[in-house]
Amino acid sequence: MKKIVVLRLGHRINRDQRMTTHVALTARALGAEGMLLVSSDKSIEQKISDVNKRWGGSFYVRSDVKWKCEIKKWKESGGKVCHLTMYGIGLESEINAIRDIKDLMIIVGAEKVPAEIFAMADWNIAITHQPHSEVAALAIFMDRLQKGEEHLKDFKNGKLQIVAMRRGKKVKENKNLKHL
Amino acid sequence: MKKIVVLRLGHRINRDQRMTTHVALTARALGAEGMLLVSSDKSIEQKISDVNKRWGGSFYVRSDVKWKCEIKKWKESGGKVCHLTMYGIGLESEINAIRDIKDLMIIVGAEKVPAEIFAMADWNIAITHQPHSEVAALAIFMDRLQKGEEHLKDFKNGKLQIVAMRRGKKVKENKNLKHL
Repeated sequence: MKKIVVLRLGHRINRDQRMTTHVALTARALGAEGMLLVSSDKSIEQKISDVNKRWGGSFYVRSDVKWKCEIKKWKESGGKVCHLTMYGIGLESEINAIRDIKDLMIIVGAEKVPAEIFAMADWNIAITHQPHSEVAALAIFMDRLQKGEEHLKDFKNGKLQIVAMRRGKKVKENKNLKHL
Repeated sequence: MKKIVVLRLGHRINRDQRMTTHVALTARALGAEGMLLVSSDKSIEQKISDVNKRWGGSFYVRSDVKWKCEIKKWKESGGKVCHLTMYGIGLESEINAIRDIKDLMIIVGAEKVPAEIFAMADWNIAITHQPHSEVAALAIFMDRLQKGEEHLKDFKNGKLQIVAMRRGKKVKENKNLKHL
């Protein structure tokens, strides 16, 4: 099993809360173990903790991290680092090599990313060379990385579980859980 | 060539401007021809028009549309409709059938989507059954739909073009364009 952690840079309190929440939810749904947030904003941690209670799993958000320190620590312990940026090399040529990595940190920024990130990353990868969205880039990258197997991930201990339907909505409640 | 249009529901002025801009930019980068927006908010049209000037292509945003009317018109002219929702059927089992469709409308909502949408759509498709992001769902769906070929899309007439790099940023300016 691959270990994936997302490092989120450039979060501005108020302006970026929804975007960063979507980054975290995407990372969680697609099988990352957690997100490191370069900001003192604690609201994202709380939101994701509420999502875990309802929908299961143990995805974490750790706020107020120092990016340089986290990247160094990750690399020193044998992990690799992939920075998603429209300026990088196209996904297609690199994804097979990245798939072999066991511990992967994925960096997603906002508008401005320090030049040092480009130098510290093992890969700078572009998901198209057009401007779009860090949420979209993360989603496509994680989907390609895991060849769709993340869709089979089982979220344990959630209060709620969706029953897939062709029409309409159906949600099953798990009444056996103690914390409900 | 497939024709893809995105229909964006549930946009609230102010609160959703960045998220809807990311939906539009993702649709554009991944090869949709345009986005229909169920809101009178004209700011998204302007933002995307600016992006086209700088980065090329002819992606459009049409605001203030009536969703029921647009879906009906689309279906009457032979198009199919796919609604992305965490309550739907998993992507894997349906994507091959959807790939054969020539004219496809992709519906992405916000938190609340009218029940009628579930009934009117030809497919209700889930990109995982966990809550995450309409931007992520659209990105993965479009990437799977086109098997990555959208990454080869050429954006013509842009002022700027990225030169892919392993480290750092390089942008080429197209000086031959009249509108610059």
